[in-house]
Amino acid sequence: MTSFPTAASKHELEESETLSPRFDAAGLIAAVATDAETGEVLMLAWMNAEALQKTIDTGEAHYWSRSRGELWHKGATSGQVQSVVELRVDCDQDAVWLKVRAGGDGGACHTGRRSCFYRAVEGGRLVEKA
Amino acid sequence: MTSFPTAASKHELEESETLSPRFDAAGLIAAVATDAETGEVLMLAWMNAEALQKTIDTGEAHYWSRSRGELWHKGATSGQVQSVVELRVDCDQDAVWLKVRAGGDGGACHTGRRSCFYRAVEGGRLVEKA
Repeated sequence: MTSFPTAASKHELEESETLSPRFDAAGLIAAVATDAETGEVLMLAWMNAEALQKTIDTGEAHYWSRSRGELWHKGATSGQVQSVVELRVDCDQDAVWLKVRAGGDGGACHTGRRSCFYRAVEGGRLVEKA
Repeated sequence: MTSFPTAASKHELEESETLSPRFDAAGLIAAVATDAETGEVLMLAWMNAEALQKTIDTGEAHYWSRSRGELWHKGATSGQVQSVVELRVDCDQDAVWLKVRAGGDGGACHTGRRSCFYRAVEGGRLVEKA
């Protein structure tokens, strides 16, 4: 069972060198992946402790699939493996940011688009963007 | 009471022009804010329906503060108001991406850093980055 330490204080959480992620009631933290080259936000997903540890250990993004209820090695079937260039954690350690290089066709979205965020809200409608 | 329509199908969710956000059991969706100029990820926060609607209506980022349990007009006290340059939604409409211009000192983090993601995981430790 993978486990991480718990920060003893808000100060420790924000200022220490210790990774002490704060998983929510479902055992998850939010993870945002951006393209390491372009900075584009590719996707937002979730990690449990095991997914985070595997991401750190292997250098490839692992998530927790909420819909399938299982550990998800991104790209294992699609080829869109995400090599982690940098992994960051936010101030209160309940979110991580992965700068990645995507393998396969370089995309991240199951719909075939490069980024999952392919629509913008404009004038009350969704408009597809490049 | 603010409300959004519910998509009738997965296809509609992913391909239609209708904003039909999927809030979780707590009534929230994840929201990632990036700097519209640099692409840097500034913060990850949460929105309920009211926060999302106010963000759309005012062009300034509103979130739901989970710690305070209240609507949060980012920057109302700090001056770090986030003007929304573009608002995007992801494929399954359970996350939004805001490209923002931050007012005040241009930062987003309550610790005084520009981005909340100021530490990288390196060799099992957190290392502060510029």
